[in-house]
Amino acid sequence: MIKYIVENFYDLKLQDGLIPAIIQDHASGEVLMMAYMNEESFKKTLETGKTWFYSRSRNELWNKGGTSGHFQFVKNIKIDCDRDTLLIQVEQIGAACHTGNRTCFYSEIYNFDEK
Amino acid sequence: MIKYIVENFYDLKLQDGLIPAIIQDHASGEVLMMAYMNEESFKKTLETGKTWFYSRSRNELWNKGGTSGHFQFVKNIKIDCDRDTLLIQVEQIGAACHTGNRTCFYSEIYNFDEK
Repeated sequence: MIKYIVENFYDLKLQDGLIPAIIQDHASGEVLMMAYMNEESFKKTLETGKTWFYSRSRNELWNKGGTSGHFQFVKNIKIDCDRDTLLIQVEQIGAACHTGNRTCFYSEIYNFDEK
Repeated sequence: MIKYIVENFYDLKLQDGLIPAIIQDHASGEVLMMAYMNEESFKKTLETGKTWFYSRSRNELWNKGGTSGHFQFVKNIKIDCDRDTLLIQVEQIGAACHTGNRTCFYSEIYNFDEK
């Protein structure tokens, strides 16, 4: 595993100041959700060890689990080859999805094996 | 698993006509890459059973594996709760990353266990 040290949030390749973060269960490998981070939420994530995001629709920071108690404790953070997407492996408390589902990706729209 | 039938690409929540697609190895659960789809690449993916994307930097469609032979055969496609992100589980031939790494997320920038 190559260690790429991000000294500055702006070492990342941002779009409108944001970077998408894929959240994956560190134990099961299940992809739980995707959300966006700005510099402040990225720093708060590093400081607290829990995920913070930036809501594009509400224009505000939010701490996953802050109201539900369904926190995500960060195990590690990876960046992709072109530095424009984060992959964050977490310990998920309860459900990642606000619907109560474990993952936000609970709806299948196509299955090639059943074709 | 709820089946959410997407009759029309525009049933999805797009940003500038695009939707991000997380690509995951269907067998190992490893997250391999993230790329963007427009309507044409989404349709070509469904038609061919292999992933097609839209390159924002080159403004063109591309077929993953088209030049490298490292195709991604689609097993299933899921959509998240707010319909703005796809999760595509694939059988990855060779390396997903143009660097030759199996996954594009080969660089760790933070590890809380080592803190």
